Amino acid sequence: MRSAFYISDGTAITSEVFGNALLSLFPTKFEHHTISFIETTEKALLTKARINKASSRGGKPALVFHTFVNNEVREIIESCDAILYNFLEPFVAPLEKELSIKAKPKTHRTHSMHEKSYDYRIDAVNYALTNDDGSNVTNYEEADVILVGVSRSGKTPSALYLALQYGIKAANYPFTDDDMEELTIPNFLKPFHKKLFGLTIDAQRLIDIRDGRMANSKYSSARQCRMEVREVEKLYKNEKIPFINTTKLSVEEITAKILAETGLQRYKY
Amino acid sequence: MRSAFYISDGTAITSEVFGNALLSLFPTKFEHHTISFIETTEKALLTKARINKASSRGGKPALVFHTFVNNEVREIIESCDAILYNFLEPFVAPLEKELSIKAKPKTHRTHSMHEKSYDYRIDAVNYALTNDDGSNVTNYEEADVILVGVSRSGKTPSALYLALQYGIKAANYPFTDDDMEELTIPNFLKPFHKKLFGLTIDAQRLIDIRDGRMANSKYSSARQCRMEVREVEKLYKNEKIPFINTTKLSVEEITAKILAETGLQRYKY
Repeated sequence: MRSAFYISDGTAITSEVFGNALLSLFPTKFEHHTISFIETTEKALLTKARINKASSRGGKPALVFHTFVNNEVREIIESCDAILYNFLEPFVAPLEKELSIKAKPKTHRTHSMHEKSYDYRIDAVNYALTNDDGSNVTNYEEADVILVGVSRSGKTPSALYLALQYGIKAANYPFTDDDMEELTIPNFLKPFHKKLFGLTIDAQRLIDIRDGRMANSKYSSARQCRMEVREVEKLYKNEKIPFINTTKLSVEEITAKILAETGLQRYKY
Repeated sequence: MRSAFYISDGTAITSEVFGNALLSLFPTKFEHHTISFIETTEKALLTKARINKASSRGGKPALVFHTFVNNEVREIIESCDAILYNFLEPFVAPLEKELSIKAKPKTHRTHSMHEKSYDYRIDAVNYALTNDDGSNVTNYEEADVILVGVSRSGKTPSALYLALQYGIKAANYPFTDDDMEELTIPNFLKPFHKKLFGLTIDAQRLIDIRDGRMANSKYSSARQCRMEVREVEKLYKNEKIPFINTTKLSVEEITAKILAETGLQRYKY
């Protein structure tokens, strides 16, 4: 199989995210490799050897997507037996011209710690953990958003992703079987109606997920799952709670949709 | 302030990550906006109006970084009064040539759900939560890595990031005051020595962080923080546990370094 390398003298997150986005346009399989912090000529030479080996093993030259700030290291990489894609090159000169200012490449600026956003994010992670799964219902003043939904509809990963990526404080509250008889917004959530955001999921997918965790239980039964989904969707509609169906969505898509629908501001860029 | 827009007919994560990486090369401040899921001409026209408004308000045309798969929508955006950077354009044609295959752009492929990686990630998040902060010391067979360190050295956010981004199962175990008298690897961790990865932090930073959470306590005292840091670093060295100092690192950098040092494989690309 042909190899694709995502490499950088920093975290290589940009190369990885963007390189992977490009390759996802092609219906072809690749062997993916990320190599980060290639900061010395020694590491560059080791990386070059690894890339060259992959090229000769794969029969076709490896694809190498890179973002280097250090020129000396980049030149070594550019001498690899591979097809190279320099992600910065097509954009830096036009941006310099447009901004009338020279780029000041500095390794580790992109994904390094910005004093403010760092604290936001750690605080937000702590908030999401403390207010996960209805474990604490007294902190909702602080929430930027409160995700609601049945068990296993995607609330916890989404809340954590909002916290880690964007510094957004997301609590989450589960509607359980006990709530279902006559499902309403619990009293402690009522003052925060505007912060509520609903998740729902296709009943069949919910059955499959719950079955993986607790087979042959009431919790995972078709009847129960269908009833819960029906009830929460009715609640969302009656109470005008915005909601999305997470069945076919990744965590990235769920959170991007939550941000798009709520207009919540990211604390971090 | 000049505006920068990161937009797409998908999640806009690629535009956001890469656009932000490019702008971080310039010592200039921007007003950042991400607009995702611009999938209809109606939304495109609304976005165009918003961009044009930002351009005239900012005095200078906004910078627009985009990755559109839908041509009709892209054409509307390209008629904005703004400086446009099409991220896909410089790379798609060369890749098509190199791969001898046409790109099959499909909205939402990049950050959408890949059946396998999705489950890996949700499982990994559940694992990280269940095995957070030493709350469970019986599950370490399953761990890909076990982060150790003093309280507030960055274990929890790092474990969650590894899970959410890469589907890696990271447990974390804190060394507390009770362990310090004669710090050794606890018995239940000994069989998993090879999975241990240490985090440390500068004592002064630790004092500041703990002081923000529990001022004037033994926990946040200079003496206690210095002692804990000294003891864990001694342990890492004696026991040959690889470790990094997280003081100046973002969560992205910490996890990239953990991956680089351990050679752990990502489950998701």
